[in-house]
Amino acid sequence: MLNHIRIVLVNTSHPGNIGSAARAMKTMGLTELYLVSPEQFPHDKANEMASGATDILDQAVIVETLDEAIADCGLVVGASARTRTIPWPLFTPREIAEKIKAEPPHPVAILFGREQSGLTNEELQRCHWHVQIPANPAYSSLNVAAAVQVMAYELRVASLDQTTFSEEWDYRLATADEMEKFFVHLQEVLVELDFLKLNAPRKLMTRLRRLFFRARPDVMEMNILRGILGAIQNNKI
Amino acid sequence: MLNHIRIVLVNTSHPGNIGSAARAMKTMGLTELYLVSPEQFPHDKANEMASGATDILDQAVIVETLDEAIADCGLVVGASARTRTIPWPLFTPREIAEKIKAEPPHPVAILFGREQSGLTNEELQRCHWHVQIPANPAYSSLNVAAAVQVMAYELRVASLDQTTFSEEWDYRLATADEMEKFFVHLQEVLVELDFLKLNAPRKLMTRLRRLFFRARPDVMEMNILRGILGAIQNNKI
Repeated sequence: MLNHIRIVLVNTSHPGNIGSAARAMKTMGLTELYLVSPEQFPHDKANEMASGATDILDQAVIVETLDEAIADCGLVVGASARTRTIPWPLFTPREIAEKIKAEPPHPVAILFGREQSGLTNEELQRCHWHVQIPANPAYSSLNVAAAVQVMAYELRVASLDQTTFSEEWDYRLATADEMEKFFVHLQEVLVELDFLKLNAPRKLMTRLRRLFFRARPDVMEMNILRGILGAIQNNKI
Repeated sequence: MLNHIRIVLVNTSHPGNIGSAARAMKTMGLTELYLVSPEQFPHDKANEMASGATDILDQAVIVETLDEAIADCGLVVGASARTRTIPWPLFTPREIAEKIKAEPPHPVAILFGREQSGLTNEELQRCHWHVQIPANPAYSSLNVAAAVQVMAYELRVASLDQTTFSEEWDYRLATADEMEKFFVHLQEVLVELDFLKLNAPRKLMTRLRRLFFRARPDVMEMNILRGILGAIQNNKI
């Protein structure tokens, strides 16, 4: 289970936090670290804080965009400190760990945002689920590496019970990349249908994203959905 | 429960770790910090790492000996990374949190040792119980503040009546009746699009039913889906 999990740090400011996160990961048996546009990396401070986990830093994959970090993932989870205007499926670290344990063996990404501002709404809308650490309402500001430590700890505890994936499904789930291509296609069709006005989108695409992320289409279902979109385009006036 | 718990850092070397530990405590609702012979405290680095939790540092009690820190405590728990020659009652953080929850309301101390060497055997033998974070055997060296974060997290989760988020959603879920009307409408449109051939339906509607049942649309999402179906019908050739 643990070797399918990828920790993605988005736009981290302080290299020391990247190092501390790597150490937190390694103590819990996680190894795969992606860094999306880190402000300073590599950096001595990162290596110093990583202590005996510099191998995690050495193997870290540095990418420019979140899309590159999650394209091949079958499940994307975003760490969220705030409640959003449109509620998204929201779980505790323990619940998420149990759910990830039940996943098929595809790559799973867990996203952690900036020190000051976390993940943007747009980034959170790339996620199937959100995870929130049940922190003190009067002071909920966990350091990003501390949040990684708590999440990694729950994943490890869940992994110790059993390490096999239980869910059997007929087709593999769509990847993040396939989901995004579907949303692009869907939006295109809705505009052509004059159902979506791009100058007054309201929250239409956000609601549809949330809906289809909840459904978690497999590739066969994705083919059907894309086929329906194609058929609509072929039949338009 | 949380206000009876005292975190005791024994002989900490780096003031930054004391600050990080204070932050970890505050995010989980713990406030009482005892420092046994810290090497450097107070210190700017401690305040910096504490971020918004400097009040915990300001109220910290500095003592010379472990005895002073735990004298009034009804329960003393020591964090241990190693197994000792003489086995002691040893629990996971989750087990310890549940046990502390069941304690009468006396002060409870949880001890964390030095960065390099942890607690001495003598210090560990001042404890009723030991707690060990189930870390990666190949690299079990959690930073002391990270260990405080994990333990404090488990204490907070235990202290909450429920650890799960109440399902708050913006609209009620669609009823079975509304789902069926949607599937009738969907099938109608797919036939009109010539995407579904009723004499050779294969498993198309079955797959779409399964997909949308998994998503569990709310009424707003259902209105959007029905609206899209209507727009397709208005735009057909």
